[in-house]
Amino acid sequence: MEKARLDPMVETPALLLDRQRMDRNIARMRAHLSTLGVQMRPHVKTNKCLEVARRLFDDGCGPITVSTLREARFFFEHGFTDILYGVAIAPNKFAQAAELVRMGASLTLVLDSMETTRQLAAYATDQRQKFDVLLEIDCDGHRSGLAPDSPLIVEIAHALRLGGIEVKGVMTHAGNSYNSKSIAQIEAYACQERDAVLLAAKTLRNAGFAAPVVSVGSTPTALFAKDLTGVTEVRAGVFVFFDLVMAGLGVCQLSDIALSVLTTVIGHQPEKGWTIVDAGWMALSRDRGTASQAVDQGYGVVCDVHGAPLPDMIVVAANQEHGIVAARDGCAGAAAFPVGTQLRIFPNHACATAAQHGGYHVTGDQVPSAYWPRFGGW
Amino acid sequence: MEKARLDPMVETPALLLDRQRMDRNIARMRAHLSTLGVQMRPHVKTNKCLEVARRLFDDGCGPITVSTLREARFFFEHGFTDILYGVAIAPNKFAQAAELVRMGASLTLVLDSMETTRQLAAYATDQRQKFDVLLEIDCDGHRSGLAPDSPLIVEIAHALRLGGIEVKGVMTHAGNSYNSKSIAQIEAYACQERDAVLLAAKTLRNAGFAAPVVSVGSTPTALFAKDLTGVTEVRAGVFVFFDLVMAGLGVCQLSDIALSVLTTVIGHQPEKGWTIVDAGWMALSRDRGTASQAVDQGYGVVCDVHGAPLPDMIVVAANQEHGIVAARDGCAGAAAFPVGTQLRIFPNHACATAAQHGGYHVTGDQVPSAYWPRFGGW
Repeated sequence: MEKARLDPMVETPALLLDRQRMDRNIARMRAHLSTLGVQMRPHVKTNKCLEVARRLFDDGCGPITVSTLREARFFFEHGFTDILYGVAIAPNKFAQAAELVRMGASLTLVLDSMETTRQLAAYATDQRQKFDVLLEIDCDGHRSGLAPDSPLIVEIAHALRLGGIEVKGVMTHAGNSYNSKSIAQIEAYACQERDAVLLAAKTLRNAGFAAPVVSVGSTPTALFAKDLTGVTEVRAGVFVFFDLVMAGLGVCQLSDIALSVLTTVIGHQPEKGWTIVDAGWMALSRDRGTASQAVDQGYGVVCDVHGAPLPDMIVVAANQEHGIVAARDGCAGAAAFPVGTQLRIFPNHACATAAQHGGYHVTGDQVPSAYWPRFGGW
Repeated sequence: MEKARLDPMVETPALLLDRQRMDRNIARMRAHLSTLGVQMRPHVKTNKCLEVARRLFDDGCGPITVSTLREARFFFEHGFTDILYGVAIAPNKFAQAAELVRMGASLTLVLDSMETTRQLAAYATDQRQKFDVLLEIDCDGHRSGLAPDSPLIVEIAHALRLGGIEVKGVMTHAGNSYNSKSIAQIEAYACQERDAVLLAAKTLRNAGFAAPVVSVGSTPTALFAKDLTGVTEVRAGVFVFFDLVMAGLGVCQLSDIALSVLTTVIGHQPEKGWTIVDAGWMALSRDRGTASQAVDQGYGVVCDVHGAPLPDMIVVAANQEHGIVAARDGCAGAAAFPVGTQLRIFPNHACATAAQHGGYHVTGDQVPSAYWPRFGGW
């Protein structure tokens, strides 16, 4: 008889991390970037976990990207010194950043406006504080950043120099690659991302700034870029775990997804073909990233306890601590999962689902063997 | 000149709780239920905070509803003894529940299936353990529960009795009231919710079970019920804070919303009328509960630093640590918020947004005066 539970038992809902899949995903990214001859500066916002971050590097402490200064401080205190804070710095965070620099962090900041530039330059002058700064470039209209041909690029570099800050280079993020409809489109986004920062870097160099750093990154473009000549580093985060959004893009297979939520069947609505489980949006997150993809995976793809996807079974709705599992085509399959059955759910978005949990129950050969804590907050 | 920051400064993003509004919201619910002559058993899943839960009661420790056994344990360890665990119990949680009962908690469990009943009865017999149990009734097809006229209601009560467990009553949750289009519809849902449990209770009593507890609850139906004769207690949680979903239903006004996320402007895309802030979905949650309402509030309504809503400004998109603020009608308003400006964002769903934070920065007269920690996990 098929074993219907993990053993030793983990209380549900719980976040499981398949270590073998994670290691394979990391190896894939490293091999690809090594072929392209470019450094990896992984984004640790996805994992927020020391044990995961250490596995990204041979020496355990390579260059990283963070999304909060709390991440910067945590990883710095645990031996990571080369840190890019990938969100535009605001004046209320200058003092926090300066403190990290004084403590010895090689912390790089990002900005994209003359407003911030003037305030940072004034702060740097006033406090006699050096900062490393990259200019954020907007390669696809997705979010922040200066246009690659903006005259502000050189103006900001000059204004920074007046404050004693020598601009270190440029960075961008191809956020729109998440909306790609084909691998060919991802490849095109990768070229667009590269070309945007190469243009901005060239403009800076023509104006007399060395701008040694040219930084790009998103998991789709990082994995499908064919030529990153001129790029010095690649940031990406979700590749470590992968998720249903990445699978929907064709960037990975379901069998590459290293993260899942372990859940227990707590009831049924037999007339509707519903199985009720104890993983609601608190355990899965409210992320519906696959809603805009060709296949909408609801709140996640349902697997058996060993992680094998159950054909067409998804979480169709979620309340705080209730998930409703049903067949995508509406055909009842509820009887197959008696109360107490353990199931696993692949998440839409690894960053969002992981953030709902205090840590990872690490599985190697299906048995949780370790617990790796995460942190959160700001 | 208008002060553009909270003072003393709170690092952003941060969760703010307006104590005066909260107290007013609690008083409103208590007054209403008092008029109806029914006990309040508030749901603490929304707040997960000792300081908030204590303010719900005159004596600080009244009967509560919880959504996880971790909540049950936490609140029991802090003096709350009368606890309803409102999610159907599953066999993997029997031992945890039994431990709380042995420690002295008056813990009531919920179930809605013969499967769980048989397992719980067997466990109770085997372990010589008493449990208090309510049967979950489905009043609106929303989620879990037995149909109000299901023959299983009496069969389960008998099966429980065989295991030494006397059914204590019935409970339901009018989840569909969240989809109401008018106050009249909420009132109708309140009647439907009440009638469903009254029918089930009557069936039990006719079969010889005392079934003293008749429990209903959702914030909309609780606040707009006109007659709860026969109902013994009302569960509701989100009324303490309120949120944009409740405002969209007409259950509260924007000026009643006690919870907001404090954020800082970090940049602009002037051509698009975008203001970029440091509250993304990590601070706001991915909840899009207003998307199905008459007015879609995006990821939240934007207010000035003092909490006054800015006409038609919402968070139109959110990445992990970036929010994009724009006018609902597409007209640019970005210039009004220089980099460094602090803003507040009212959340779609208080339960989801609060869960993204480690605690509440409590404001009375606009100045954060205390920090009340929250807990999470299972």
